[in-house]
Amino acid sequence: MLSNISSKTIQRLTLYHCILRDYIIKEKEYISSNQISELLKIDDSQVRKDITLCNIQGKSKIGYDVAELKKSIEQLLGFKIAKDVFIIGAGNLGLALTNYNDFKDYGLNILALFDVDPKKINTIINSKRVFHLSKLGDLVKRMEIEIAILTVPSPVAQEVADMLVKANIKYIWNFTTTILEVPETIKICNENLMGSFLDFTKN
Amino acid sequence: MLSNISSKTIQRLTLYHCILRDYIIKEKEYISSNQISELLKIDDSQVRKDITLCNIQGKSKIGYDVAELKKSIEQLLGFKIAKDVFIIGAGNLGLALTNYNDFKDYGLNILALFDVDPKKINTIINSKRVFHLSKLGDLVKRMEIEIAILTVPSPVAQEVADMLVKANIKYIWNFTTTILEVPETIKICNENLMGSFLDFTKN
Repeated sequence: MLSNISSKTIQRLTLYHCILRDYIIKEKEYISSNQISELLKIDDSQVRKDITLCNIQGKSKIGYDVAELKKSIEQLLGFKIAKDVFIIGAGNLGLALTNYNDFKDYGLNILALFDVDPKKINTIINSKRVFHLSKLGDLVKRMEIEIAILTVPSPVAQEVADMLVKANIKYIWNFTTTILEVPETIKICNENLMGSFLDFTKN
Repeated sequence: MLSNISSKTIQRLTLYHCILRDYIIKEKEYISSNQISELLKIDDSQVRKDITLCNIQGKSKIGYDVAELKKSIEQLLGFKIAKDVFIIGAGNLGLALTNYNDFKDYGLNILALFDVDPKKINTIINSKRVFHLSKLGDLVKRMEIEIAILTVPSPVAQEVADMLVKANIKYIWNFTTTILEVPETIKICNENLMGSFLDFTKN
């Protein structure tokens, strides 16, 4: 189902979900497409079109039931399907992602971290243990992990990616600036922060 | 000039630049559009179309001069125009971004961090000082800063965004999951990591 939805729509629905979560905290019961469109500075008709994917009905002049719309987006985007991941690289970015408790609400379940720094091995970050990178292959296999988040320094990124491929990882979320060479079967998502920045600040 | 280029093209050109930087380190002199398209798993014709924006000529059967193409992308995307930014929130993510030395190559110049934790105030991270948030307005004004990177905990994000608006910040790069309410004139970029993840792992 999710595979038929475009990347841009998934991005927008995830942002609507952030708004809805905030509305629930503020104990607001209803939300209109117009309120969403104003907060995100996008077109109202776009918001209404996206929400039709959720198969729920709004009430005229009142809007959508916040809890119902939130739940519907969660079902549509599969937030409740837990995806187990390993983080490779226990530097600041690896720690930031590990400490980011919101991930779990979206089905991203960090199980462990890997590093080579002896000072970091066996430390516990937000209840997750840091293992030596040499343990990767064995743990990927035993825990049937398919997704890795790569936050190592860019100069060693390719070498570590080769280890991930060898360990049978299927998805690499790449936070380094190295463009990785991997077999056709491996899916890479390059988290291109500089592209976002250059686009955002252009004028 | 950059304002006429689509977001997706900027994203792709930034990734080409990552590849070119890597080629220079590996002392490779030429690169073909096909080599780029295979690394990024995108269409060769798309790569060639993007490179026409750079106004440089490739050599038949050899490809593009790596250094020349790299320089041309830098000029096109304005990498050499330094943009000064403040980071608001000296937690793990703020530190990760501050320690990320590659940013400077892309014109992103982090000048200082802000936080409210007494233990962090006046510490130095990668040669940048952490100031108390109460100093923000004064320093934005004196240093003529227009761009802020927001990495505070989500529950306080709106409150801090209000301070940024009051301090005359024009661009907020939002790494929190709070959708911020700001005046029309303020430009927001929501770094929607969960949207990327859900899109990337859909199948």
